[in-house]
Amino acid sequence: MVSKHEQLYNQLCQHARETAMLSATESILGWDERTMLPPEAAEYRAEQMTLLAGMIHQRRTDSRLGDWLGELATSPLAADPHSDSGTTIRQLKREFDKRVKLPQSLVEELTRTASLGQHVWQQARANDDFASFEPLLAKTFELKRAQAEALGYDKNPYDALLDDFEPGESTANVARVLSDLREALVPLVSAIAGSSRRPDVSILARRYPLEMQQGFARDAAAQIGFDFCRGRLDVTAHPFCTGLGPHDCRITTRFDENFFNSAFFGTLHEAGHGIYDQGLRTELYGLPPAEAVSLGIHESQSRMWENLVGRSRAFWDHFYPTAQQSFPDALSAERLDRFYFAVNDVRPSLIRVEADEATYNLHILIRFELEQALLTDDLQVADLPAAWNDKYSKYLGIRPGNDADGVLQDIHWAAGLVGYFPTYSLGNLYASQFFAQAERDLGSLSSQFARGEFQPLGDWLRKNIHTHGQRYSAAELVQRITGKTLSHAPLIAHLRNKLAPLYGLN
Amino acid sequence: MVSKHEQLYNQLCQHARETAMLSATESILGWDERTMLPPEAAEYRAEQMTLLAGMIHQRRTDSRLGDWLGELATSPLAADPHSDSGTTIRQLKREFDKRVKLPQSLVEELTRTASLGQHVWQQARANDDFASFEPLLAKTFELKRAQAEALGYDKNPYDALLDDFEPGESTANVARVLSDLREALVPLVSAIAGSSRRPDVSILARRYPLEMQQGFARDAAAQIGFDFCRGRLDVTAHPFCTGLGPHDCRITTRFDENFFNSAFFGTLHEAGHGIYDQGLRTELYGLPPAEAVSLGIHESQSRMWENLVGRSRAFWDHFYPTAQQSFPDALSAERLDRFYFAVNDVRPSLIRVEADEATYNLHILIRFELEQALLTDDLQVADLPAAWNDKYSKYLGIRPGNDADGVLQDIHWAAGLVGYFPTYSLGNLYASQFFAQAERDLGSLSSQFARGEFQPLGDWLRKNIHTHGQRYSAAELVQRITGKTLSHAPLIAHLRNKLAPLYGLN
Repeated sequence: MVSKHEQLYNQLCQHARETAMLSATESILGWDERTMLPPEAAEYRAEQMTLLAGMIHQRRTDSRLGDWLGELATSPLAADPHSDSGTTIRQLKREFDKRVKLPQSLVEELTRTASLGQHVWQQARANDDFASFEPLLAKTFELKRAQAEALGYDKNPYDALLDDFEPGESTANVARVLSDLREALVPLVSAIAGSSRRPDVSILARRYPLEMQQGFARDAAAQIGFDFCRGRLDVTAHPFCTGLGPHDCRITTRFDENFFNSAFFGTLHEAGHGIYDQGLRTELYGLPPAEAVSLGIHESQSRMWENLVGRSRAFWDHFYPTAQQSFPDALSAERLDRFYFAVNDVRPSLIRVEADEATYNLHILIRFELEQALLTDDLQVADLPAAWNDKYSKYLGIRPGNDADGVLQDIHWAAGLVGYFPTYSLGNLYASQFFAQAERDLGSLSSQFARGEFQPLGDWLRKNIHTHGQRYSAAELVQRITGKTLSHAPLIAHLRNKLAPLYGLN
Repeated sequence: MVSKHEQLYNQLCQHARETAMLSATESILGWDERTMLPPEAAEYRAEQMTLLAGMIHQRRTDSRLGDWLGELATSPLAADPHSDSGTTIRQLKREFDKRVKLPQSLVEELTRTASLGQHVWQQARANDDFASFEPLLAKTFELKRAQAEALGYDKNPYDALLDDFEPGESTANVARVLSDLREALVPLVSAIAGSSRRPDVSILARRYPLEMQQGFARDAAAQIGFDFCRGRLDVTAHPFCTGLGPHDCRITTRFDENFFNSAFFGTLHEAGHGIYDQGLRTELYGLPPAEAVSLGIHESQSRMWENLVGRSRAFWDHFYPTAQQSFPDALSAERLDRFYFAVNDVRPSLIRVEADEATYNLHILIRFELEQALLTDDLQVADLPAAWNDKYSKYLGIRPGNDADGVLQDIHWAAGLVGYFPTYSLGNLYASQFFAQAERDLGSLSSQFARGEFQPLGDWLRKNIHTHGQRYSAAELVQRITGKTLSHAPLIAHLRNKLAPLYGLN
């Protein structure tokens, strides 16, 4: 006989599954918008997506949901917090409780400001005109403060915002790890910048025919474990990965005939996200035990395949012969050593999205420090461009010549995303710490990669990370898997081990 | 000041627009399913579409809708039946009243039987085993009779079913026109079959490289008026056209490297549907004044561009030089005369979807006569294969050697579509009658086509047909535009004028 609690729990799951189905539908509209939509169809599509978003929001704040969750939270089904039912009830309750704390008027103003903000930001960036964006940005941070107040926090309002992207993580802990990272990274980057050795990056700017790039990238994505029977690879201006169902994960990339990196490493990156999505449990699709833990953990999967695997010497020992066959004009007479050095070029630059594996984290640190200061009013929006430029000088040794290449380069703040940036660096940190553990568990990964064996690592990630969904928080996962709390050390060790020989550092 | 009726009317329109938005969303899921979906994602997609279909059905049978429509039907806004508001109220009420007549249990059984029926039919067709399909088909016709009873009808139960596809049309009128058509068509087809002249159809089976076919078909679709800023052309196994928004109409085709016709004429056909959709009023999208009148009128647009335009001598006077450039292997040494004759090959055949412009209508007649007899129990399902084969002998002079190429070839009855078939022939009849009138209004269309001028005909169709949406019924449209009721004569005249010289008939 099914108990009253079990009945209620089944009802809850059915509700959540249906909401997930609508949400996947909204994602299809979004995927189609970015890959397929005829030029004149954008406006109607936006209306359609707004309608669906409204319906989804209504379901997620349905008061019946609160009643069910309230009753189930004290039931035997929630007793084991890491069981499927315990995870489901805990996580759905967590989300519901957060959502109902936000007054409808604040939600609407956040949405409106984010929508307007992106529009104004786009113009401001095109015209290199920070002043025209300043009032909107000030308004955004004011609303984000109100959001933090409504959600509540212990010590730091930033905690309340960070929680949307890295649930359960604290600002203090992130600040500790990132400041350790900075201490080690700034001198490393500076030593590299001072080295007389430089890769010949013109190798990557030769002619790489689009059709061949497409085949090569697709083949690499399949070899590292992206399942094309349960996914697709398409072309977009801004690459992304989106899950549209338990067996439908779609990644995108962009092709540049005269630059090897963007399509290839972009594809590995998105395939890494996709492999995580494809590793979630399909039978519980739409429920927390089958959903990603956090943005940081998601990013750890993309960064691992892109950088720790895809930029390793062993990876290219395996792939370089095929690359030479695919791109004879560019590579048939080129030595692997020189190609490998070129894909590991490290140099301070102004633009985050074009930054290399090492300096990337300094871009994130700058944003993380500035958005905290803006949120707590320790920094005024009017003073932001100068503060931005000062930090670039200090951490990266270069100074933006204008705001378009400086403080105006990212869409995040304009879109109301405050607390999002650190998840990129958390991803790099998690990736290195997991990778080091995988190597301890599986033996020499580089010997495996050199033989084209990527499945042992893939299986390890699936078993240790993917199948758990939200059973554990990111911090719990790190502790369970590596036996330690998160640290900057594995990332620094990885960078030093790879870069010191290339750049002739001690 | 906005009157109470106007307020109610705005509410009604908002409701209908939102329902249309959800319906367009369901169509996107369907388009994606047929063009993009990863192999393993089909099951979840079906669940998603079922969820949306349920939500849409709920909205369309919402009792508030009945109250609003009841009040508005007697208001001044409904006084002029051809005004936007009059059309909207009349047509929405018509649909609502039909929907609520059907008991929920019948709707569910129809859906279940159609779903199972298609599955069983697929197997039966693959195994040439009518007996295994017979019980399902008998059940289907039993349910269709129940549906007709629930909907109500004046004389003939078939009227109630036909109305779903060709609203307002009567069985008696369709029977009259189609029997006139049969009287004239059977001797014409028989004379052609007896002619000693035959086109060399091997011309169309030479090598037509896919990429070139794609470009050639796309260019032709654009030239006849399909707007690629408001639509797309993709590849599918079974070509179709689907509207996904006021500026988003998608058509599909399939390519065969060794057969010219399927992709090219298929694209013209679907582009014809698409041009109709793109000609509907965008500002009223989702409301009856901006929706297609009937399947027959929709088909008239596809058949006109495919056959009356695309298989005309003048069309090829314009396109043949480009065709020769696009397909030099196949056509550079080939005479236009011979190519033109080949694309107008007429010969009795067993399969409807492969039939030519002339014999096609005999395939439809057979189905129309048989489905009426099945519905009224004048024919038993067990006797259907023999009746089918007898009619093929009588009308087309050939007899199917098995049921797979006979009575099992079409999915329609298996999917519960009874009353659908005649709309294909109605489309051919409307097309010829409209085309003859357009020629009277615009002067020699063939001179225009020979110069590559397709816009005058496109504008005429838009003005006389597309922009009216559902303002008039199909029969009213025909009467308004041509001053006459629907007749077989223009189609027969068109076929005779084209085919008599080719086949050397008197």
